[in-house]
Amino acid sequence: MGSSFGKNFRVTTFGESHGGAVGVILDGCPPKLKINIDLIQNELDRRRPGQSKITTPRNEDDKLEILSGLKEGITLGTPIAMMVRNKDQRPGDYSNLEQVFRPSHADGTYHLKYGIQAGSGGGRASARETIGRVAAGAIAKQLLKNLFNTEILSWVKRIHDIDSQVNKNKLTLSKIDSNIVRCPDDKVAAKMIKRIKELQQDGDSCGGVIECLVKNVPSGLGMPVFDKLEADLAKALMSLPATKGFEIGSGFLGTYLRGSEHNDSFIESDDISKLKTISNNSGGIQGGISNGENIEMKIAFKPTATIGKEQKTVNADGKEVLMKAKGRHDPCVLPRAVPMVDSMVALVLADHLLLHQAQCSIIK
Amino acid sequence: MGSSFGKNFRVTTFGESHGGAVGVILDGCPPKLKINIDLIQNELDRRRPGQSKITTPRNEDDKLEILSGLKEGITLGTPIAMMVRNKDQRPGDYSNLEQVFRPSHADGTYHLKYGIQAGSGGGRASARETIGRVAAGAIAKQLLKNLFNTEILSWVKRIHDIDSQVNKNKLTLSKIDSNIVRCPDDKVAAKMIKRIKELQQDGDSCGGVIECLVKNVPSGLGMPVFDKLEADLAKALMSLPATKGFEIGSGFLGTYLRGSEHNDSFIESDDISKLKTISNNSGGIQGGISNGENIEMKIAFKPTATIGKEQKTVNADGKEVLMKAKGRHDPCVLPRAVPMVDSMVALVLADHLLLHQAQCSIIK
Amino acid sequence: MGSSFGKNFRVTTFGESHGGAVGVILDGCPPKLKINIDLIQNELDRRRPGQSKITTPRNEDDKLEILSGLKEGITLGTPIAMMVRNKDQRPGDYSNLEQVFRPSHADGTYHLKYGIQAGSGGGRASARETIGRVAAGAIAKQLLKNLFNTEILSWVKRIHDIDSQVNKNKLTLSKIDSNIVRCPDDKVAAKMIKRIKELQQDGDSCGGVIECLVKNVPSGLGMPVFDKLEADLAKALMSLPATKGFEIGSGFLGTYLRGSEHNDSFIESDDISKLKTISNNSGGIQGGISNGENIEMKIAFKPTATIGKEQKTVNADGKEVLMKAKGRHDPCVLPRAVPMVDSMVALVLADHLLLHQAQCSIIK
Amino acid sequence: MGSSFGKNFRVTTFGESHGGAVGVILDGCPPKLKINIDLIQNELDRRRPGQSKITTPRNEDDKLEILSGLKEGITLGTPIAMMVRNKDQRPGDYSNLEQVFRPSHADGTYHLKYGIQAGSGGGRASARETIGRVAAGAIAKQLLKNLFNTEILSWVKRIHDIDSQVNKNKLTLSKIDSNIVRCPDDKVAAKMIKRIKELQQDGDSCGGVIECLVKNVPSGLGMPVFDKLEADLAKALMSLPATKGFEIGSGFLGTYLRGSEHNDSFIESDDISKLKTISNNSGGIQGGISNGENIEMKIAFKPTATIGKEQKTVNADGKEVLMKAKGRHDPCVLPRAVPMVDSMVALVLADHLLLHQAQCSIIK
Repeated sequence: MGSSFGKNFRVTTFGESHGGAVGVILDGCPPKLKINIDLIQNELDRRRPGQSKITTPRNEDDKLEILSGLKEGITLGTPIAMMVRNKDQRPGDYSNLEQVFRPSHADGTYHLKYGIQAGSGGGRASARETIGRVAAGAIAKQLLKNLFNTEILSWVKRIHDIDSQVNKNKLTLSKIDSNIVRCPDDKVAAKMIKRIKELQQDGDSCGGVIECLVKNVPSGLGMPVFDKLEADLAKALMSLPATKGFEIGSGFLGTYLRGSEHNDSFIESDDISKLKTISNNSGGIQGGISNGENIEMKIAFKPTATIGKEQKTVNADGKEVLMKAKGRHDPCVLPRAVPMVDSMVALVLADHLLLHQAQCSIIK
Repeated sequence: MGSSFGKNFRVTTFGESHGGAVGVILDGCPPKLKINIDLIQNELDRRRPGQSKITTPRNEDDKLEILSGLKEGITLGTPIAMMVRNKDQRPGDYSNLEQVFRPSHADGTYHLKYGIQAGSGGGRASARETIGRVAAGAIAKQLLKNLFNTEILSWVKRIHDIDSQVNKNKLTLSKIDSNIVRCPDDKVAAKMIKRIKELQQDGDSCGGVIECLVKNVPSGLGMPVFDKLEADLAKALMSLPATKGFEIGSGFLGTYLRGSEHNDSFIESDDISKLKTISNNSGGIQGGISNGENIEMKIAFKPTATIGKEQKTVNADGKEVLMKAKGRHDPCVLPRAVPMVDSMVALVLADHLLLHQAQCSIIK
Repeated sequence: MGSSFGKNFRVTTFGESHGGAVGVILDGCPPKLKINIDLIQNELDRRRPGQSKITTPRNEDDKLEILSGLKEGITLGTPIAMMVRNKDQRPGDYSNLEQVFRPSHADGTYHLKYGIQAGSGGGRASARETIGRVAAGAIAKQLLKNLFNTEILSWVKRIHDIDSQVNKNKLTLSKIDSNIVRCPDDKVAAKMIKRIKELQQDGDSCGGVIECLVKNVPSGLGMPVFDKLEADLAKALMSLPATKGFEIGSGFLGTYLRGSEHNDSFIESDDISKLKTISNNSGGIQGGISNGENIEMKIAFKPTATIGKEQKTVNADGKEVLMKAKGRHDPCVLPRAVPMVDSMVALVLADHLLLHQAQCSIIK
Repeated sequence: MGSSFGKNFRVTTFGESHGGAVGVILDGCPPKLKINIDLIQNELDRRRPGQSKITTPRNEDDKLEILSGLKEGITLGTPIAMMVRNKDQRPGDYSNLEQVFRPSHADGTYHLKYGIQAGSGGGRASARETIGRVAAGAIAKQLLKNLFNTEILSWVKRIHDIDSQVNKNKLTLSKIDSNIVRCPDDKVAAKMIKRIKELQQDGDSCGGVIECLVKNVPSGLGMPVFDKLEADLAKALMSLPATKGFEIGSGFLGTYLRGSEHNDSFIESDDISKLKTISNNSGGIQGGISNGENIEMKIAFKPTATIGKEQKTVNADGKEVLMKAKGRHDPCVLPRAVPMVDSMVALVLADHLLLHQAQCSIIK
């Protein structure tokens, strides 16, 4: 259990990092949606290992195969199964890990929970698992784009202590993808890349913050009281590997404001269905339901646990051992996490779109 | 939809703030659990309005009625229905709100989503809805306490800009409850209370941060890849009214560390099932699964949206109006949110306990 | 677990037969539906004990209380909680049952599963549990009636070996309710009533078959491959107490036909969305999806297990004992099961209506 | 939606009959289960087309590929993905069907629901979809066999009007598989085979009844009130293609008995956990919970809708057309449906085993 997400637009993923394949079944996608398959492959390429000098050198082309659910590029309304074969597996690299628990990695807890572990690499705990999420997310994005022109834009806001300020009004996907670290401020990006390389050479790693902006969000999405939109977004994003924190709208900083400062005033409008607010401390969601304003979120990613430096740890017998990770790993997960964030947000919005349609569109 | 939480230990809540009653059905609770009903009532008293000078004056005794599922205080394994009657309803107070959208409140989005709203008050968006959560959470707490001596302790860490530092080793429930703001540092608590009163007199409000510590957590809880323990905790807590952020372990601050600084080293041990780590940046969860260390979280609560000050807003016709809230409301939600946080954490842990039992206890 | 039904139009029931109350939460009902509360009470009256000489004499008025989810009779889109207090409890009647397992009743299996049992009566295994289903079903019926003029008509087709033939074209609810056994053929009904009374006087019981006809079913309902419409109807009806068999359309008898005899030929039509077939062996469902024809089902109910005659059985220690049931019970469950069948069918159709709306209405 | 089954032991299937592949993800399987992969392939061979002269001649070897979830044949507790490539696709055979609705087939209803159809063949409505069910069911069978020595035996009881009587005490899998029609009475089997061939030559088809016996069932499985064991079995079996009826225990025939005749008397026993009954009209389930006796069921399968004979029907424009099916199809689905029934029963029991473990094993 635990490998499915969503209620009406529902994905189920499979695959270990060094097994035969990784993939996903997407069940519940509306029929008659025209899919641009290149856009799916493009998202996979954005999360592909080996895409630049600051990512893991594992060499995978991550070529998508669609097994079902489409007819001449149109969705049938039946499950869409998608798969990527694992190619560049090097189980040997991890042979010394099988009985050693990497600090702050999932090795120890998988062992505690299941009493058995994938033969090598991170198994399901590897970011390789996110291929299925990204493939399905790319379909969700197209659904939202086609129906509402919804645009989901995530970027690297901060790496280690190198922060950026971005003009959200001018932000575009091509601007984000214009450099390998995916920070739309080129000058700051250069500093970030330098820092990542330095830490990598030092056998170390770093984390940071990804920010996400969603434009043209339909209002009315979200189901109080437990399936509030921000609650499902929080779950979706905190289910990504290495995440440690989530903020919506004003986040932790907003708690320093008074109510009179924090409240977002509505702007007079003839069309109540398109209400706008002057400020957006709410981050586009009020009472668990989207209000039509931009959704704004921040997600904290910890420094990669697997590092080249020698560390003390224990093996499966509880004995202390020294270890230096030999497997290929990212010195910083954030550049490749950007499409993962996009995808999880798209999956949440697509699911809530169908849930809202189910309950609230039938009686006029 | 949206009013159920959990998979195997599953709660469904009902009730508007000014309707006949609020309550919950808890389905899936193990049979043969001895319930201390006073402990349930005690948790309801901790979240009760009118409990102190810094909470809303609405006068509800919130007396619990258990309708099913118990026999002489022992669980039958059948649904446990619990209910609290609403008593001190004053729909009149809200008569001017019915067609006016309070800024940053749920009035506008409920209107957009459902096209109809509860007659007065916040309806399901009111914190009154959390009574069902707290009642069910009090049973979850007893399940965890009885089986593993698990203790869930939440407290007010910060109000507005008044921060506290707490010695977690010495923390107790009675220490937390020793003052009305539920900050276990009495000196800081006094300042917090003063601040809340000042803002209240000013017709304003404030927010802050609640911290939560869970001790004696069984290891192995959490279901990768989507139902990771921190993902479900994030969802649970971000489903509480007024939340804007969530952190597990090192949170956003941890992203300033290098991997070599952030990693939690394991301590040599004869019993691998009771592995400990030197530091706990992971916050008790690695790879989405509890490792047996303390779980540590922080949750951001925004300043209360409903304030006494006059604000500009719009009505249901989109026209600008001025409003001053007359309904009773909390100038700061955090003191009463403490038992809500406790409860949501207990519900997540109890659910994952049963889910883990289902999958991982049957083959030795 | 096990007390919830439906995915998007979802009910959760609670309550033991001799506890404080029985009831239901209905979550996911569309907002803005005008509810006729008398129609809900009317359905409860149709399943009420003590309604005639051939039902259990337990005296309950089963007066409905609605606790949430409505505003002036209109649905809010929030959970609708409904409850009936238990009044005429006589735990004493069952004191000799607590340690004795009635043959073919749930006493033994509840004991095996939970290791504890409700103090008296059938607990959750009592037909009293169906009050929540019937109340929620009465709302589902109104939703379907208002939107599609859908009509659900169930009646007693056979009691013991007394069979009836009914002209389905002329069938009405008032015709069904025109006699206490709910068989719309008055002459046959009189024989059935006589038989039930004879068996009752003999300390015995009987079963039979209920037939159900649904007219004006929207086409397109049902979700292959597991949630086919007939599969969910089968589950719904086989979850009612005392059911032993389910048939859709031609059922078991249809298996004696050749394909060329069994196939339902389509009739030429200008409007493909309103396709009709000459015969209806399919029972209104093909490939798991409604085709717009009438849905036709039959459900087998076994003779009531609790009888007045002395029977050999065992107690909770496994020792043989003789027993004569003293509790009040129905000599034949079918007359009161008619509204239960109606309700379960309505719940399935309402759920599939919303599920279909979610997936198939958003892209034109 | 609709392609997942089970709560804790959960399968999700994918694939159209003439697409790239069909398969399944099984999520929630306990870790550390030793899987015999040959037994999975063996079950696929039992449902394989072209296995005998009385099945469709479509030539598929249905060679299983396992993509994830196992390590050296042991389950990891992670999703098990399994796939079979489609090979002998002949879309041309169906080119005349794309716009013609076969009577009593799913063509028309898929068109009504989705507004688009798989390019050829039955798409998801084809029995080819059941490959994923059978592969996952073969794992469920091994789980039950290993833990409780549970044995699931299904066989063809009746074809058209040719009925068999089977001595259930002597029944074995090899006896069932000893002839191509899977009726363990060889003399009757010969008659059945002859009948099927005759109808096939006549361009016609037939149906019949499959019976299922489950031995060594753990007691306590089933979750009242909606997820009763017989309710979930009914759903599981009525979700198979071509099913029209379901019976548990005494079924429809039992409704002709009096309560005193129908009740199953318990036999005195020292070990209450192994209670036996003299008769088994209950079919192994009482109050929705297994009592440890054999589970006995019957399932009605209609005659195959696709036949060689010319039939009148309509096309997608509603116009009358004459058609003769050219695609390869079974003249009688029952021989190949036997492993499908086995698998669905195994999936239900495995799921309820884990659900019972979750709720009822944790407090002693």
